Amino acid sequence: MPRLIDLAADTATRPSKGMRQAIAAAPVGDEQRGEDPTTLALEARVAGLLGQEKALFLPSGTMANQIAFLVHCRAGDEIVCAENAHVFGSEGAGAAALSGAQFRPIETATGLFSVEDVARRLRAPRHRSPRSRVIAIEQTTNRGGGRIWPEADILALKALAQEKGLALHMDGARLLNAAVATGLAAARFAAPCDSVWIDLSKGLGCPVGAVLAGPEAFIEEALVWKHRLGGAMRQSGILAAAGLYALDHNVARLAEDHANARRLAALLGAVPGLALQPGGAVTNILFLDLSGTGVPARALAEALLGEAVRVNVEGESRIRMVTHLDISAGDVEAAGRAIVAALARLRADPQGHAVP
Amino acid sequence: MPRLIDLAADTATRPSKGMRQAIAAAPVGDEQRGEDPTTLALEARVAGLLGQEKALFLPSGTMANQIAFLVHCRAGDEIVCAENAHVFGSEGAGAAALSGAQFRPIETATGLFSVEDVARRLRAPRHRSPRSRVIAIEQTTNRGGGRIWPEADILALKALAQEKGLALHMDGARLLNAAVATGLAAARFAAPCDSVWIDLSKGLGCPVGAVLAGPEAFIEEALVWKHRLGGAMRQSGILAAAGLYALDHNVARLAEDHANARRLAALLGAVPGLALQPGGAVTNILFLDLSGTGVPARALAEALLGEAVRVNVEGESRIRMVTHLDISAGDVEAAGRAIVAALARLRADPQGHAVP
Amino acid sequence: MPRLIDLAADTATRPSKGMRQAIAAAPVGDEQRGEDPTTLALEARVAGLLGQEKALFLPSGTMANQIAFLVHCRAGDEIVCAENAHVFGSEGAGAAALSGAQFRPIETATGLFSVEDVARRLRAPRHRSPRSRVIAIEQTTNRGGGRIWPEADILALKALAQEKGLALHMDGARLLNAAVATGLAAARFAAPCDSVWIDLSKGLGCPVGAVLAGPEAFIEEALVWKHRLGGAMRQSGILAAAGLYALDHNVARLAEDHANARRLAALLGAVPGLALQPGGAVTNILFLDLSGTGVPARALAEALLGEAVRVNVEGESRIRMVTHLDISAGDVEAAGRAIVAALARLRADPQGHAVP
Amino acid sequence: MPRLIDLAADTATRPSKGMRQAIAAAPVGDEQRGEDPTTLALEARVAGLLGQEKALFLPSGTMANQIAFLVHCRAGDEIVCAENAHVFGSEGAGAAALSGAQFRPIETATGLFSVEDVARRLRAPRHRSPRSRVIAIEQTTNRGGGRIWPEADILALKALAQEKGLALHMDGARLLNAAVATGLAAARFAAPCDSVWIDLSKGLGCPVGAVLAGPEAFIEEALVWKHRLGGAMRQSGILAAAGLYALDHNVARLAEDHANARRLAALLGAVPGLALQPGGAVTNILFLDLSGTGVPARALAEALLGEAVRVNVEGESRIRMVTHLDISAGDVEAAGRAIVAALARLRADPQGHAVP
Repeated sequence: MPRLIDLAADTATRPSKGMRQAIAAAPVGDEQRGEDPTTLALEARVAGLLGQEKALFLPSGTMANQIAFLVHCRAGDEIVCAENAHVFGSEGAGAAALSGAQFRPIETATGLFSVEDVARRLRAPRHRSPRSRVIAIEQTTNRGGGRIWPEADILALKALAQEKGLALHMDGARLLNAAVATGLAAARFAAPCDSVWIDLSKGLGCPVGAVLAGPEAFIEEALVWKHRLGGAMRQSGILAAAGLYALDHNVARLAEDHANARRLAALLGAVPGLALQPGGAVTNILFLDLSGTGVPARALAEALLGEAVRVNVEGESRIRMVTHLDISAGDVEAAGRAIVAALARLRADPQGHAVP
Repeated sequence: MPRLIDLAADTATRPSKGMRQAIAAAPVGDEQRGEDPTTLALEARVAGLLGQEKALFLPSGTMANQIAFLVHCRAGDEIVCAENAHVFGSEGAGAAALSGAQFRPIETATGLFSVEDVARRLRAPRHRSPRSRVIAIEQTTNRGGGRIWPEADILALKALAQEKGLALHMDGARLLNAAVATGLAAARFAAPCDSVWIDLSKGLGCPVGAVLAGPEAFIEEALVWKHRLGGAMRQSGILAAAGLYALDHNVARLAEDHANARRLAALLGAVPGLALQPGGAVTNILFLDLSGTGVPARALAEALLGEAVRVNVEGESRIRMVTHLDISAGDVEAAGRAIVAALARLRADPQGHAVP
Repeated sequence: MPRLIDLAADTATRPSKGMRQAIAAAPVGDEQRGEDPTTLALEARVAGLLGQEKALFLPSGTMANQIAFLVHCRAGDEIVCAENAHVFGSEGAGAAALSGAQFRPIETATGLFSVEDVARRLRAPRHRSPRSRVIAIEQTTNRGGGRIWPEADILALKALAQEKGLALHMDGARLLNAAVATGLAAARFAAPCDSVWIDLSKGLGCPVGAVLAGPEAFIEEALVWKHRLGGAMRQSGILAAAGLYALDHNVARLAEDHANARRLAALLGAVPGLALQPGGAVTNILFLDLSGTGVPARALAEALLGEAVRVNVEGESRIRMVTHLDISAGDVEAAGRAIVAALARLRADPQGHAVP
Repeated sequence: MPRLIDLAADTATRPSKGMRQAIAAAPVGDEQRGEDPTTLALEARVAGLLGQEKALFLPSGTMANQIAFLVHCRAGDEIVCAENAHVFGSEGAGAAALSGAQFRPIETATGLFSVEDVARRLRAPRHRSPRSRVIAIEQTTNRGGGRIWPEADILALKALAQEKGLALHMDGARLLNAAVATGLAAARFAAPCDSVWIDLSKGLGCPVGAVLAGPEAFIEEALVWKHRLGGAMRQSGILAAAGLYALDHNVARLAEDHANARRLAALLGAVPGLALQPGGAVTNILFLDLSGTGVPARALAEALLGEAVRVNVEGESRIRMVTHLDISAGDVEAAGRAIVAALARLRADPQGHAVP
């Protein structure tokens, strides 16, 4: 069996040899007593990177989102976000379950939306209305195709948020992709936010973790919730060491992932009936719309798996592919060829039955 | 000052003399011990009316909605509803705050939606996805203009709900309006639902209360939540007596409210630039769109108040009017004339400044 | 069947003829628009009575307690109370279910506790500790035998609360009993509290309702929760009228209930093996301990019911009796005789089998 | 500065060289796709060890407790536990904040309690009562001095739980200490429980993690909550590898920790005025009561820190010491001598001012 070319998600990245060495050598202490030097170093470094006062290491990005809502909201509050945002569809309705807050989703294919989109959805203060409280954005937009929130749009949302007494929260799972793709410092996007986090376990290639940043008072409350949710660990320097290593070694190289996504788009752009996401690959994500081919997404995904290529099914006719640290230019070319071939076969036999 | 013609809401109805006599004469006992005969009689009667096993008297329709969600849902569940539903916009994000459940709203001007609209929004079961759990409909649709969910659509939603293991919940605040307008028994709409309630304090003219109905096991759990939320009362027969009186005297006459709403629509239909809700008045609610007139809704509402007519502002260019027990045909004609005149004046001076 | 002498609870009181007339004649409006004159009048009157800025009419005392906790607490907070308090044992764990707050109960037979009892249970601030936030007291103590919190003790708790940044909350279900019994104005007990409510449906003889009072900002937030929980009603003047009537007619007469409770204690004090609550009847509640008689509480209660006397079973050997508006001195004497006789019969046949 | 002898907690343990090698070499995959082989292996191994069907790796023991309550409880449920239990005092009131469940704490110095203690606190089912739902025990009892729940007592609680429809939950943070100390298999204590977990980051010496075990349906729901709370990680094999290493190398040696705790008790047993916990050291925890010495706990702890010995202050006159993997017999002897000397000095000057 050949090695799997895993384009399903950038969470598939595995720690490299260098990263494993950094992990094994990490100085550690009891994080809950504030005594893990590696975790403290990572938190300070990420706070600086994002232009925020303080940061907090957490076991996952989902916990970072949930804690941000828990600190910003009281029960009965409302959070405006994209309808295809991770917080709305992929976190188990955690904002309702944990914060008692309700989402006001905006339908948007790109995951981006305007100040007017938000303003129209803010509730006038009334005793019986939900209280508008948070604007949540995703940098880059995962289900929107890895698109980048422009700095100007973030500043415009921030201005609205300040005017209306709202918090602006950024799910920065792929913020560093946006920074590398634009050539702007991550803080340009992150500093205007009232809370923001980056993920270590996606493009950065770490095994576990996310780092949430914000003002000192925010992080102080976030730490209380980290304990309450069970995210407080002990010698977490073992994980934080990977984060420090990744910030040293794996950020600039995200440009390769973006080049690979464009390479993939170029390979697939000419296939008749196959529609790439509008605008093509911007960062490391590429959605394909198969509806013009008549081939079900599931059938394609299964056929590809048979050839050691994994993609993510995102609907009846929709496929997502994500490039990352463990995907080379050669992998992308092999995957592109496999997709073209599989589509050709499946069009002849769209149920995906084995062709003798 | 002339008597106010209050078209802002049918919650404005005041108990009539006959209803007050029924209240004063009500036999009562301690409801929490199951010993209030009038409350028990009302609950039995509403259960029968709605084709359900049991019913429970509550202080409000909001509590009826919230308790239904509390019984149907666990934290992390998802409720599909119209984006303009009362449960989504006018109950303080209670489903999130109390049940820990999240709404999946459907944009719909009428408040109605199709089985396909729902089916497309049901989540595949995954560990990290919200769990689709309830379909919530409003009979009639308040912000949708008092439109009626057809029996066939309710049955189709019920079939989907059963197939997918969902509960179908009806906010029946104006269910009796739908029944009277269609000539169908209320149970035709209500019996297919897993939970359903009617409001006593709107068109029925009672001072306080709603009655939630459903299967016996549902009502048993609902009673626990009635206590926990503080909705368990004592000699509630004082209120239930009004409900019984209203079911005897105030149901058939809802037809007059519908005729009055149509009368109002006829009076206003010819005003240039003024757009009635598409399809006109169906039950007792009528929305007006003022955008073609250039007159701000707030300015019109204020001008009308000066002439003892009250309407509800529902946006910058939107007005809602609701007919009810305390509104006669003559009131409607007077209000219609006042609106026509005020619009004419305000067009000349759209800021609504007093014209000398 | 003779008329039932119902000593089980003072919630059994039924509206008198005069109260029913007041109800039937009440001027009303839509409470949710702030337009019910009778409800507004009752709220103003109770605020004054309790020495607080504002007050809010609610359907029950349970809702008053829950809303107070919802306003004072955030999830993860801790409330110190008596282990036998209504909030801890008789409100469906509502503080946890709704506020996400935890109780720190103090074992106390009387329902009273000291400043030191509280101070010892306050948590040092730590990221992983519950946050001490509320001290909750009951005036009078229901399961503690209707005992009165002395003004000095309330002031001492208030001082501790202020020092530690806690809120002092009073469940004043029977606060007016304390006021009448001591001859002190209710505000002497209530004004030091950060939130306090009185019940209308117990000794005051109203059918439904409680009134929660506190500072203006507290009541503003309480109103939001009143809506969210479904406690916002419409023409609630129907209920508030009973409250105003009761404040005029049914307060001073609570002294009769206290005299009747003492009368009952005197009648039962000499029965061998029967232990009255230590200190005897203080207000309108009297607990009996049957363990010295060998008669199960349930057997006695059933025997008494056969003679049209109802008492409340509070454990295997414990009975509670409560005097109220619908209990006369003659009723108490009849009940006392019935208890003495039933105990004598049951001692001979403690299983309560019918004696031929 | 000499190396710190850290007796404050067994969470201080740091990964050994061998454990670090195991971590660095761990085969990994994406845990959220069920593809991390090391995590899967650890889960299978712990399930077997505890006599349960399935197990789930989590970032902390606090998350294990909280998820167990989230799965067992609905809002409004009640959990019986020891008043000094970790779940009641050291998890941020998480059961209330997350599950909406209320604790019914039992005062017990040892952390142990009887079937009768529980039975007396179970609520009769009533609409307004909290619903008794879980019995939670701690093996060993941390604040109770590391005492061991005897197998027979666990079986008796299990019988009560089954009879009453309750779940029996074990916080097994130090369950393996109990197993080693008694010579009984861990499953003897764990298999009767409806949910049970062991901690990896205490005596076992791992950097991060706990493993929760239970029936398959329980673990399936637990996995949903793991995602919702943000405990789902990616290449968690990095952490799980430490767990497997610890189960191979660090279990039997817990006997040394117990011997060291007894050694410490022996060293301190003769100090006048100093009271060891009743019964002395049973496992790896030892509490000292300083009240007979007149020396404040804080003063002693500070004095010891000056000599590179750390202990935990647990009240004004109470100290906790915990032996573990990084504490040798020599460390214990040094610490014991330091305590004796510091107490002698501080008695002369109990405020702990430096003696010239």
